[in-house]
Amino acid sequence: MFLKNCWYVAAWSHELIDDALVGKTLLNEKVLLYRGRDDNVVAIEDRCCHRGAPLSLGRLEGNCVRCMYHGLLFDNTGACVQIPGQESIPPSLKVKSYRVVDTGHLVWIWMGDPALADEAAIPDFEYLKKPEWHGMPDYLHYDANYLLIADNLADFNHVSYVHTNTLGGSERYAVEHEQSPLEKRDDGFKLTKWHMNSDLPPFVKKVEKKMGKVDRWNTVEMKVPAFFYLESGFSPAGNGLKEGNRDGVIEFRNFQAMTPETDKTTHFFWVYMHNQKKDIDLISHSLHASILEGFYEDKLIIETQQKVLDADPQFKLKAIAADAPLSHLRWLIEKRVKEESLKV
Amino acid sequence: MFLKNCWYVAAWSHELIDDALVGKTLLNEKVLLYRGRDDNVVAIEDRCCHRGAPLSLGRLEGNCVRCMYHGLLFDNTGACVQIPGQESIPPSLKVKSYRVVDTGHLVWIWMGDPALADEAAIPDFEYLKKPEWHGMPDYLHYDANYLLIADNLADFNHVSYVHTNTLGGSERYAVEHEQSPLEKRDDGFKLTKWHMNSDLPPFVKKVEKKMGKVDRWNTVEMKVPAFFYLESGFSPAGNGLKEGNRDGVIEFRNFQAMTPETDKTTHFFWVYMHNQKKDIDLISHSLHASILEGFYEDKLIIETQQKVLDADPQFKLKAIAADAPLSHLRWLIEKRVKEESLKV
Amino acid sequence: MFLKNCWYVAAWSHELIDDALVGKTLLNEKVLLYRGRDDNVVAIEDRCCHRGAPLSLGRLEGNCVRCMYHGLLFDNTGACVQIPGQESIPPSLKVKSYRVVDTGHLVWIWMGDPALADEAAIPDFEYLKKPEWHGMPDYLHYDANYLLIADNLADFNHVSYVHTNTLGGSERYAVEHEQSPLEKRDDGFKLTKWHMNSDLPPFVKKVEKKMGKVDRWNTVEMKVPAFFYLESGFSPAGNGLKEGNRDGVIEFRNFQAMTPETDKTTHFFWVYMHNQKKDIDLISHSLHASILEGFYEDKLIIETQQKVLDADPQFKLKAIAADAPLSHLRWLIEKRVKEESLKV
Repeated sequence: MFLKNCWYVAAWSHELIDDALVGKTLLNEKVLLYRGRDDNVVAIEDRCCHRGAPLSLGRLEGNCVRCMYHGLLFDNTGACVQIPGQESIPPSLKVKSYRVVDTGHLVWIWMGDPALADEAAIPDFEYLKKPEWHGMPDYLHYDANYLLIADNLADFNHVSYVHTNTLGGSERYAVEHEQSPLEKRDDGFKLTKWHMNSDLPPFVKKVEKKMGKVDRWNTVEMKVPAFFYLESGFSPAGNGLKEGNRDGVIEFRNFQAMTPETDKTTHFFWVYMHNQKKDIDLISHSLHASILEGFYEDKLIIETQQKVLDADPQFKLKAIAADAPLSHLRWLIEKRVKEESLKV
Repeated sequence: MFLKNCWYVAAWSHELIDDALVGKTLLNEKVLLYRGRDDNVVAIEDRCCHRGAPLSLGRLEGNCVRCMYHGLLFDNTGACVQIPGQESIPPSLKVKSYRVVDTGHLVWIWMGDPALADEAAIPDFEYLKKPEWHGMPDYLHYDANYLLIADNLADFNHVSYVHTNTLGGSERYAVEHEQSPLEKRDDGFKLTKWHMNSDLPPFVKKVEKKMGKVDRWNTVEMKVPAFFYLESGFSPAGNGLKEGNRDGVIEFRNFQAMTPETDKTTHFFWVYMHNQKKDIDLISHSLHASILEGFYEDKLIIETQQKVLDADPQFKLKAIAADAPLSHLRWLIEKRVKEESLKV
Repeated sequence: MFLKNCWYVAAWSHELIDDALVGKTLLNEKVLLYRGRDDNVVAIEDRCCHRGAPLSLGRLEGNCVRCMYHGLLFDNTGACVQIPGQESIPPSLKVKSYRVVDTGHLVWIWMGDPALADEAAIPDFEYLKKPEWHGMPDYLHYDANYLLIADNLADFNHVSYVHTNTLGGSERYAVEHEQSPLEKRDDGFKLTKWHMNSDLPPFVKKVEKKMGKVDRWNTVEMKVPAFFYLESGFSPAGNGLKEGNRDGVIEFRNFQAMTPETDKTTHFFWVYMHNQKKDIDLISHSLHASILEGFYEDKLIIETQQKVLDADPQFKLKAIAADAPLSHLRWLIEKRVKEESLKV
């Protein structure tokens, strides 16, 4: 059971160029995304109501899309507006339509009751809108339930072991880091971790040659159902980072959005950003490659985890102390899914 | 649930040459087809009654087939007639046998009660027996239920959109064609469509260079469960085609037989014939290639349709006016399947 | 339902070299096998109790293994002995451990109640421990339930038809061989077959050029759930083999152990041994290649059998006289599985 009355990322805005008819499965529903000639993004059911053919195999005509099986034409509200060789069109001939908002380089979709959709509540990532922040937006497809990916992000200790030689830099991170109290929120949590007097991890060394020992910070924010926001950086060690001094730091901003495709697969949208003023594209490319390397380390373990869990539905996971943020997030989601099911 | 008391195409006759032991799944049953040394075609269960090994991995011996696991020998009635190293053979050691008829280049099989099999009722295609008609018999395997293919054939409007650049020639076909009243029959339907003063579609242009504007006709006949017969042709425009004048026409005959393999896969046998007197083989090859190109257009959409329907069993298709022939055929099949289930 | 309170082969001992962390599914359970720094073989659950990550993706540390997701460390009893960043460890944090014995080049595992495990009952193959016997241990993975493989081995008539040109040598074997009375035992059966005055089968001809007509013997022993032991050989024909004369014979010893992986897949461990004194390695290689050729003949038919049975769960196999050993073995296994289920 997925949370439906909330915003999900359906696509990067740039996916909908060149008249693309993009068919995706989102929360087990077949959705067609396209940008009409009026430049508005449309999301309607990717399944002709006549014989079930995918409209994504169809043809864009103005703001409409024509099913290329028997020629039925649908407008951007999902209504059938033409049946070749037939005069009148029964109003029941229509496909479902979805609320979508194209903002901040992302296409957001509301899969639940459209009446409840509130654009102000879109959990967007402000740095995508700021010109001084740079990065390469990308996408991964996961053969795993979205919660397993959220779990991974909610516990940063995995950085020590999964990403020792890429994003982490040292197994000491898990045992040496200091941590702020967990800030539990109604829609997620916030948490800061510091790793003082540590070495630069490999992914930063590639783009920052001069720093020696550093004080590292990671401020993680997560929102239900599955958005991850990271503000992080590295200060020359002993420079008063925790007291607020940001002189000489190198900083990053990272956004990861998980949208369930099916019960066991997930769309994973991500961008990793920097605010350097020189070699901007080189640094963007370097970070993109490094982070992707780290994500493939996650992907292997998370997709394997899914197979292990599938093989034995009786298996019960056992919590450790570091699971507190993860447990809070899962509890929030379960509570809201339950609330939704009671309303219907 | 499949209709069982009726004839299906099991194979093209030429599949059973060179002592081939051909194992196929037909209506979810494993069937072995072969031609005995007495030249009669045999159809028996493709599963040894001893340990379940496929007899199609066995060896032809006269009119019998030997299982090559433990050596049991079965005759053309399915009876076990030899067990190596064992004297007496219990009569229960036998495999199922099926009524088959090898006629008109096709092997027909009766999957239901053999006592009800009536050879006179074989819905064969007369043009395969006429020497002046030429074509290249062929086969496609479909990952879709046979009814989705029959649906496709029952509504010729799809020719406009799926086959615009191959078999159709124009999107105008769907909106401009004239149509005879639908002739509903107890075992199917018949229907003629005319498209007057139109252009030759690409597949005909390749073999007929001289015609200009044409009057096109398609006479479609379908029979339960899933046989399609097409008489079609092109006359110089305005030559009195509808009044019966066939001077200067170019004509085609087409047969398509769908035999369910499983609930979601189908054997599709087809031939497209012409009666030209020159360049016979070249024209046969050209038509074969053109029609196959069109069939792959169908196959993509039909197999995708199957996936869409599988993904959501709750989805209800909505009919349009052009579905009348399709609806009649589906209604006939459902009625007969129901009658069969009541008899048993 | 598998028999659990018995020994199975988990691996060849040589699989656990070079600090390998070997993850396998055995009887539907995920098992990690490794050799600790103390040289003892360990078998514990291959699934971290925290988030389900496979420990086989982890890291060997002394006699322990560290999960490389969040760094939990497990000892060779399956107890969690370290959680990075957490002081106390609840005793419930542990994974299942299994009794294992590394003996005679094989790692044996007891999947049931460890209290019932009796090392003296390990059904090992003595020839693996004898220096005068030589062979190349190997492994096949089967897409079939282990019982279908055991069935195959319990009825040697299949040698005539499946292996005519490899291991059998003649279809006459099935009809001409003589057979001892079946010795039914509480844990299996024993049986000897003779084929007098026959030709050497191809696999022996390759390594023995001088023999003419031979008297062949096969003494088969099988033990529940699925162990196969063969003592076989070839004597110059008419030399008094049945009366005990072994002058001039060439002999072989063969062991095959089937360990269920899942309900429909099997681990198949095997070795085929000879006691020749010259060209030892050449003969080992030749036999290995020949037997493997024969095993692939079996594999094709057994895996196809599995598919046939899967396609129709209603299908009932029918016994023939030669099935007596097979039926006894299946009856023993069913009886013991039933006894186990009653105890629990």
